[in-house]
Amino acid sequence: MISVIIIGAGNVASHFYKTFKTAETVSVTQWYNRRLNAIETYQNEVEITDDIKALKPADVYLIAVKDDAISHLSSQLPFEDRLVVHTSGSIGVHDLDKKLKRGVFYPLQTFTKDADVDFSTIPLCIETINKADYQTLKTLGEAIGCKTYKVNGDQRKALHLAAVFVNNFTNQLYRVAHEITESEGVEFEILKPLITETAKKVQDISPYMAQTGPAKRNDKKTIKKHLKLLNNEHHKAIYKLLTASIQKTHGRQKL
Amino acid sequence: MISVIIIGAGNVASHFYKTFKTAETVSVTQWYNRRLNAIETYQNEVEITDDIKALKPADVYLIAVKDDAISHLSSQLPFEDRLVVHTSGSIGVHDLDKKLKRGVFYPLQTFTKDADVDFSTIPLCIETINKADYQTLKTLGEAIGCKTYKVNGDQRKALHLAAVFVNNFTNQLYRVAHEITESEGVEFEILKPLITETAKKVQDISPYMAQTGPAKRNDKKTIKKHLKLLNNEHHKAIYKLLTASIQKTHGRQKL
Repeated sequence: MISVIIIGAGNVASHFYKTFKTAETVSVTQWYNRRLNAIETYQNEVEITDDIKALKPADVYLIAVKDDAISHLSSQLPFEDRLVVHTSGSIGVHDLDKKLKRGVFYPLQTFTKDADVDFSTIPLCIETINKADYQTLKTLGEAIGCKTYKVNGDQRKALHLAAVFVNNFTNQLYRVAHEITESEGVEFEILKPLITETAKKVQDISPYMAQTGPAKRNDKKTIKKHLKLLNNEHHKAIYKLLTASIQKTHGRQKL
Repeated sequence: MISVIIIGAGNVASHFYKTFKTAETVSVTQWYNRRLNAIETYQNEVEITDDIKALKPADVYLIAVKDDAISHLSSQLPFEDRLVVHTSGSIGVHDLDKKLKRGVFYPLQTFTKDADVDFSTIPLCIETINKADYQTLKTLGEAIGCKTYKVNGDQRKALHLAAVFVNNFTNQLYRVAHEITESEGVEFEILKPLITETAKKVQDISPYMAQTGPAKRNDKKTIKKHLKLLNNEHHKAIYKLLTASIQKTHGRQKL
């Protein structure tokens, strides 16, 4: 049995709490937040506290607060030499106070407040300073069904950055597509199966192999037609830059 | 029963042939291609020909050839007043020879040569010049399990353009993410669940509502960190442009 204390009350903290509660080999000893009202709903099923001095012993302290608050919070902890992890993609393990045994427990997924999360589909990136702690975190990750990966600080930062491309930027391309279809009064709905298929394709083959379309085959006629259709200068700039990017990747001449 | 003759031998033609063959209410009368060897494999199950003068009567002639060849091919057809459709997203219905009853039968999906296609997930965009022909094409689309949409020429062109954003450009963002993770020796694998989830999210909520991340919340510190991490000027340009695009959409100040 691994005992965990959760620190913070945001999306990530809440989703971890819920999955820890259902895991047979994990017990949640306490849940700390500096404002109690954010976690009051759970007071009948777990001990809650807003007093950092009242934190009990536990195998793992999981800090899931805003990036900017992690370092200061770790220095406030009223103990030494216990395993404390944060859950951030962009903060280093050394940003935790050095009096502690330190680690990172970073779930690479997008969490939505009210939607349930299936942890069995979430890759968990683990880093620790001590080797022995790595095994504890790996066991904890597996207890909630995650696939765990050993990822160092530079690698985690690269993943966090790459995640912005495949999540935020991709979603913005969906948004631009929505604006384009809306301007002609045609349903965005029609594009949804293509969005699904595009994401599905790269589960099995590399994005390089999956590429198709006018930019890849250097179909200047279609590219010209598309640029003429785009009357939004911003959309046009994105079209040009990503067309050039595809042509660079696939060894075509520049636009 | 609707009788169809297929013209062309590329991905789209082959996938349509296979699905028409399995549909109970569709019969494939003939398959034409200017080079017989491309369709020879099928000669025991369907009549094949490379002689355009030998085309038989049928309810629908489906032209699935390269965009540039559609217009000329339609003018070569040795008959008038029969229903001829092309399957292209970017070619107008009027590019077909005016001696014919003309229409468009455009499946909005990405077709891969060897992968089987599930037509029940494919939106089929239909346009016809005569109202009566519209019903024939709708029935044909439904016979192979497609959801059909009435889409005019301008709308179809907008969809074809928007498809480049959600398919080719999105795939290129996956590629950039692959390059970023590879440069740190970390597995692209780890990003795959996030790619799936990002595509899944916009099936239910709009891309506008689905957006998260540093650009949307104007988290300048993280954006600065990311730009510093990117040493590829091309990746940096994409990061800047799409961050500015998100900020424009969500009313944040410019980068």
